[in-house]
Amino acid sequence: MNRELDGVFRPRSVAVIGASGKRGTIGHSILHNLIEYSFNGKVFPVNPKSKVIHSIKCYSTVLDVPDAVDLAIIIVPADHVGPILEQCGEKGVKGVVVISSGFKEVGPEGAAKEEAIVKIIRKYGMRMIGPNCFGVLNTDPEYSMNATFSKAQPLRGRIGFMSQSGALGEAILGLANDLNLGFSMFASVGNKADLSGNAILKYWGDDPNTDVILIYLESFGDPREFTRIARDLSRKKPIVAVKAGRTDAGARAVSSHTGVLAGLDVGTDALLEQCGVTRVTSIDELFDVAAALSNQPIPKGDRIAVITNAGGPGILATDAIVSLGMKMATFDKKTTKLLREKLPLVASVNNPVDVIAAGGPDSYRIAMDAVLADPNVDAVIVIFVPPVVVDHKAVINEIVAAIDNDKNRKTVLGCFMAIPSGVAGSEQMIKHKIPVYTFPESAAKAMSAMVRRRQWIERPISEPRTFKVQAKNAQKIIDDARADGQKSITGSEALAILEAYGVSIARSVRTDSAREACAVAGEIGFPVVMKADGPGVLHKTELGGVSTDLRSPEEVQVAFDAMKKNFSKGKTGFSGVMIQEMVPSGVETIIGMNHDPSFGPLIMFGLGGIFVEVMKDVTFKVHPVTPHDAKEMIESIKGYPLLNGFRGSAPVDFECLEETIMRLSQLVTDFPEIDSFDVNPFFAGADRNSSKAVDARFILRKEPPRVG
Amino acid sequence: MNRELDGVFRPRSVAVIGASGKRGTIGHSILHNLIEYSFNGKVFPVNPKSKVIHSIKCYSTVLDVPDAVDLAIIIVPADHVGPILEQCGEKGVKGVVVISSGFKEVGPEGAAKEEAIVKIIRKYGMRMIGPNCFGVLNTDPEYSMNATFSKAQPLRGRIGFMSQSGALGEAILGLANDLNLGFSMFASVGNKADLSGNAILKYWGDDPNTDVILIYLESFGDPREFTRIARDLSRKKPIVAVKAGRTDAGARAVSSHTGVLAGLDVGTDALLEQCGVTRVTSIDELFDVAAALSNQPIPKGDRIAVITNAGGPGILATDAIVSLGMKMATFDKKTTKLLREKLPLVASVNNPVDVIAAGGPDSYRIAMDAVLADPNVDAVIVIFVPPVVVDHKAVINEIVAAIDNDKNRKTVLGCFMAIPSGVAGSEQMIKHKIPVYTFPESAAKAMSAMVRRRQWIERPISEPRTFKVQAKNAQKIIDDARADGQKSITGSEALAILEAYGVSIARSVRTDSAREACAVAGEIGFPVVMKADGPGVLHKTELGGVSTDLRSPEEVQVAFDAMKKNFSKGKTGFSGVMIQEMVPSGVETIIGMNHDPSFGPLIMFGLGGIFVEVMKDVTFKVHPVTPHDAKEMIESIKGYPLLNGFRGSAPVDFECLEETIMRLSQLVTDFPEIDSFDVNPFFAGADRNSSKAVDARFILRKEPPRVG
Repeated sequence: MNRELDGVFRPRSVAVIGASGKRGTIGHSILHNLIEYSFNGKVFPVNPKSKVIHSIKCYSTVLDVPDAVDLAIIIVPADHVGPILEQCGEKGVKGVVVISSGFKEVGPEGAAKEEAIVKIIRKYGMRMIGPNCFGVLNTDPEYSMNATFSKAQPLRGRIGFMSQSGALGEAILGLANDLNLGFSMFASVGNKADLSGNAILKYWGDDPNTDVILIYLESFGDPREFTRIARDLSRKKPIVAVKAGRTDAGARAVSSHTGVLAGLDVGTDALLEQCGVTRVTSIDELFDVAAALSNQPIPKGDRIAVITNAGGPGILATDAIVSLGMKMATFDKKTTKLLREKLPLVASVNNPVDVIAAGGPDSYRIAMDAVLADPNVDAVIVIFVPPVVVDHKAVINEIVAAIDNDKNRKTVLGCFMAIPSGVAGSEQMIKHKIPVYTFPESAAKAMSAMVRRRQWIERPISEPRTFKVQAKNAQKIIDDARADGQKSITGSEALAILEAYGVSIARSVRTDSAREACAVAGEIGFPVVMKADGPGVLHKTELGGVSTDLRSPEEVQVAFDAMKKNFSKGKTGFSGVMIQEMVPSGVETIIGMNHDPSFGPLIMFGLGGIFVEVMKDVTFKVHPVTPHDAKEMIESIKGYPLLNGFRGSAPVDFECLEETIMRLSQLVTDFPEIDSFDVNPFFAGADRNSSKAVDARFILRKEPPRVG
Repeated sequence: MNRELDGVFRPRSVAVIGASGKRGTIGHSILHNLIEYSFNGKVFPVNPKSKVIHSIKCYSTVLDVPDAVDLAIIIVPADHVGPILEQCGEKGVKGVVVISSGFKEVGPEGAAKEEAIVKIIRKYGMRMIGPNCFGVLNTDPEYSMNATFSKAQPLRGRIGFMSQSGALGEAILGLANDLNLGFSMFASVGNKADLSGNAILKYWGDDPNTDVILIYLESFGDPREFTRIARDLSRKKPIVAVKAGRTDAGARAVSSHTGVLAGLDVGTDALLEQCGVTRVTSIDELFDVAAALSNQPIPKGDRIAVITNAGGPGILATDAIVSLGMKMATFDKKTTKLLREKLPLVASVNNPVDVIAAGGPDSYRIAMDAVLADPNVDAVIVIFVPPVVVDHKAVINEIVAAIDNDKNRKTVLGCFMAIPSGVAGSEQMIKHKIPVYTFPESAAKAMSAMVRRRQWIERPISEPRTFKVQAKNAQKIIDDARADGQKSITGSEALAILEAYGVSIARSVRTDSAREACAVAGEIGFPVVMKADGPGVLHKTELGGVSTDLRSPEEVQVAFDAMKKNFSKGKTGFSGVMIQEMVPSGVETIIGMNHDPSFGPLIMFGLGGIFVEVMKDVTFKVHPVTPHDAKEMIESIKGYPLLNGFRGSAPVDFECLEETIMRLSQLVTDFPEIDSFDVNPFFAGADRNSSKAVDARFILRKEPPRVG
């Protein structure tokens, strides 16, 4: 088991530094909650101004505490936090939670204070949550620690909740209580000066009491690390996240095609899902999904049955199920036959099963038993709109009995459409771990999250491949460019980087004289393409820097002169031309990369030319791209049929295309100094020989990226 | 004022036929609710088995009631409803509400019963709601009638609610009470045997007590009528709808391109919005939006300010505002300056304004006053996450005071993120008609509905144009085809229909001999196109029935022979060829129509060829298409840049393209017997002369459509 954060989450003794006897203060609330929640250990109030607080002996400083202190909760003004931490360090405290605000969140002065306290933390080898946070919670009876200033006393359960917003802490804990959802642990991570969300994720990944991890996220500290941890951890435990803050790559300066497209429309859902993380759009949905995942088994498949006593809600459920990508189960003939025999004549015996308003406990039991026994059904949403004439409790008892009786343990979610205050008897459902929703759409969304989880778990583990490449060649080109102060690498040098990584490129030779150009063209074989080359030559097409289909030395000569003239006008850095073979036309594609502040490098694939420019038909995946990812990228674009033998043409060499994407992903792994790139176009041909990159452009980072 | 349904909604006396003294029965509940809700008129229980019910004298039959009866509520077994209605008719009853079930919803036998009772209704000139419904409500003190069997006693308000699901009635009325939302009228329309949803819509359109109309819809009785009424009514009052049941055109047999695409992906939201109806996806969203529309003025524009005391919820609100298509307001410099001066140093003074957790009543008042006074702000979402240390009630009082003080009456929605049981003091908000939401996303969604309403109201009224056409020519072609038992019209006849409606077509001549074909080609001028023609020739391209770019009589001869041979093999109905001018290449587009069971005819526009086949880049509008609609259709496709002068080519003649779409819409108005059509391709050229339809296909209805 991971014990790295035990000092914070599993202390045997806690000092509350800045404890207060005054009700309504944070210093009072935290001390009170520790006692009220029956912390299974010793609590020491620390405050130089008091001898006793909350009927407990109070110490002037943590150094005065006679016993060992594992965890210190600190609620003192920002300026005092440093000295207090020094004392904690001397005392041998292992973990600290700094509630105090006034650090990085208030500007540069606060940021300096924050840096200073991190130094102290590191000096003594302590671990810190915060500053500027709402506290931590561990409901394990072994610790039973509520070190937050929540008014609600959280229930025990199997959900780990990490919130980046302290302000939401109260709302989150309160709402969970109202919904009967219990936590294993809770942490408000605040400014994440020492402990990051990633560290807590890893810790909870190993916690035997935590089955489901919920995250309220504003930003990732280290996106590469997050995607790595999440991909791994989400195979063991479901992670559900509300991600606030749009992917804002578009707001940054972007000079690559991929960057522009990433800014326009990157599916954050899809990216999180690629790491196995279920994205929800609001906190109520977060809890809806958590209730399902922490109470019910995930279904074996996506064939959902609906049982209802009212047509309308049945239709709403069906709509939601289908539009969320699940299937309405087609019942086995035996099931419909049985239902037809046993249910009233006017009942509808296909999916959704409608036992009609008069349908009482018996009808529900018959329907539940039959549907749960049907081999074509993976999960059930049972809707009950309480009619005046039916005994509600009896209906609910039969629903519960049918579920208890189900040997296959199929997933069941309830939907009782009534006033929020609930339906008499619903507590039976909660007791039997069957979540109940007010609206069919909520139940369907929760079900969808479970189905996607099943799909994620059953997806074969696909690891990024490593190809043998000439990394040194690429390194040299990049180093040279940086040494020259270049911000980008284009033309022949860009193609050389691709070649170093085994991406097949159109045969190209760089030259700076017309005479040589003619000779080279002859060697390559007419017709050829001529492209302006040189550092900083970025918008070739627009500036007349591309001439295609040159069929003779004379045409090469004319083109060379024209290009030289065009480029001599501005400071374009023109220094010659590239003579390139004309690639036999395949399907024009684009492969690119752009750094996203949340996810790190994103790899893009799409159709090139008019399709990328007008239709924006591209797809993104979080780097590194696995074989499974590469395949999915290619198959998920709308224009896929154009690659797969449209109107009688041969399909492209998919293996080569996938490999090219993965080789470029490897390039991204190896060179964090590349900020973004476009390989555009890459002609995907029917075989490896006719699949070639024709042009590329790399944008370098201004400063070397932060690693860690 | 529309008085057509006064017999149902504004009765002076009500008979409850099938009233019962037994608690828990519907017959008891309805009688009880009428009394409990203090119906402002006389109530007569009718039941042959009782002398007195609920302390009121009971009559054996409605005929025995000594006074006039305006409305009869009928709760007797289905078989008895007919005779009871006869009595009502004799008695001179004006309106009836049939609660009883056992009619159309249970199958053919029930449907026959339903037809029989409608005959009685019509015979006596009565109007009927139901059968199989939950009842009606009118909270106007003049009537004060709760003729439902709801357990909750609904609040008075300005919302009209029409539900197609009786079962949801209880949930709807209960939920509204919990949310403090009041109704003007409520109707559960049941099987709609006599009174349709459309009739009620019209009636409420004229009701001075109803400001907002909410609909829970499963199907439209007459979609053409619904879109007509909704377009008109929604200019006066907002209509918000949950539409259950997916657009299921795809489930029907489809033989046109447009039909297939409509089945795949028609944006029901967009279609409803085109009629001015706000679509929501769930019942809770329905109420969220209703709370905003019935309490707050709609904003003048879409520039939204957010005030918060916590960063996270501010980001969530910003995300939701932007992703719903609204703008985050950019404050006037004066506003930021004022906020900088008066708010604490650590507060954030740009939008969203963050008064931080310590921000109390004063900070909120300063922020509210400044933001409401800012000319760049149209509406405000004020978020309050109640911290331990702040006086909640005082904050709320200041928020309310600032709003009361606002001379501009800007829109304000509240978001108090706390446990559902609410924040102390929220009742102040409700009292001042400021809706409060628990989550920022809900507030943003409600705001978005208000902004879209503003946009709808301000959209210039665009009426379908009527062009001078040769309808008789088209009629003859269609009549002839029907007389011949043809299911479709293709080739030259299809083009002739277009020509009759003033759509410019490629010059085409039909002929059945090779010799004549050569002559015709000469007249038209080489090169020409040859297409197989004849009834039932549907898949020309696949069967080798199209030859393009024929440059000489010899080539025409060869092509004719080949085509004849190809088509003589199967029963294709080949009867000759069409010789057609080669249209100078413009942008290939497709214009089509398909009947949707919910919305009636949908008009489709998109790019043709590869774009429609692979990219599905098409858009749909409800027929009839106005000039505004036509323009929007063209501009809303992704490939629009290709029409608008891509890479230096001339833009297409948009006026001609719009007119073509509208002329085809007029064709749809005139010929309900056309089930669907594709005009594919229509070449959009740079001017009217080069914009031409080249091929078309009409599918005829099996039987003449129902009108009414």
